[in-house]
Amino acid sequence: MSQFENVTVLKKANVYFDGGVTSRTVVFADGSKKTLGVMLPGQYRFTTDTIEIMEITAGELLVLLPGETEWKPYRGGMQFEVPANASFEMDVKTITDYVCSFVSASS
Amino acid sequence: MSQFENVTVLKKANVYFDGGVTSRTVVFADGSKKTLGVMLPGQYRFTTDTIEIMEITAGELLVLLPGETEWKPYRGGMQFEVPANASFEMDVKTITDYVCSFVSASS
Repeated sequence: MSQFENVTVLKKANVYFDGGVTSRTVVFADGSKKTLGVMLPGQYRFTTDTIEIMEITAGELLVLLPGETEWKPYRGGMQFEVPANASFEMDVKTITDYVCSFVSASS
Repeated sequence: MSQFENVTVLKKANVYFDGGVTSRTVVFADGSKKTLGVMLPGQYRFTTDTIEIMEITAGELLVLLPGETEWKPYRGGMQFEVPANASFEMDVKTITDYVCSFVSASS
């Protein structure tokens, strides 16, 4: 799937880490939400509210998932899942394009 | 208007200048196209194919429009128009969030 159809896109960008990570919020007809983002090389720590599924569209990075001690490599075509109310770290090696899906507990 | 509804969003990011400028393409029901972008501080030169209307959502920058010799300041809430088949320069001072509309000659 190369595009999302019949969606609402918020005009305002989400900007984190001085622009090192930026994203746009996309809302689907069922009310679910994804962000389409870009990460520049750098190290970033994020905290989740819901379960997050991070699908890497392009790029290369290392990820330290909650409760793990080993950084694991990810690249375009791969994805990882982060539990709700947890924090995870990313060490982005090349410009990374991603889609993040927010999964509410009830779904 | 804080959001665009009933649109298609391309999943892949547009990346220019090593990620200094990134955007997502949004396609409307009538086939018209906009990009929602973020520019980090830096100097950028772009060339247009169609008329482009650049609406600055947030941020501060200087713009040198084609045929002009004076850089003019723009900030969130302002917009400028660039003719088709022309080039323009931007000197972005703070992280800038924008919506770029591509206006085909027939409209």
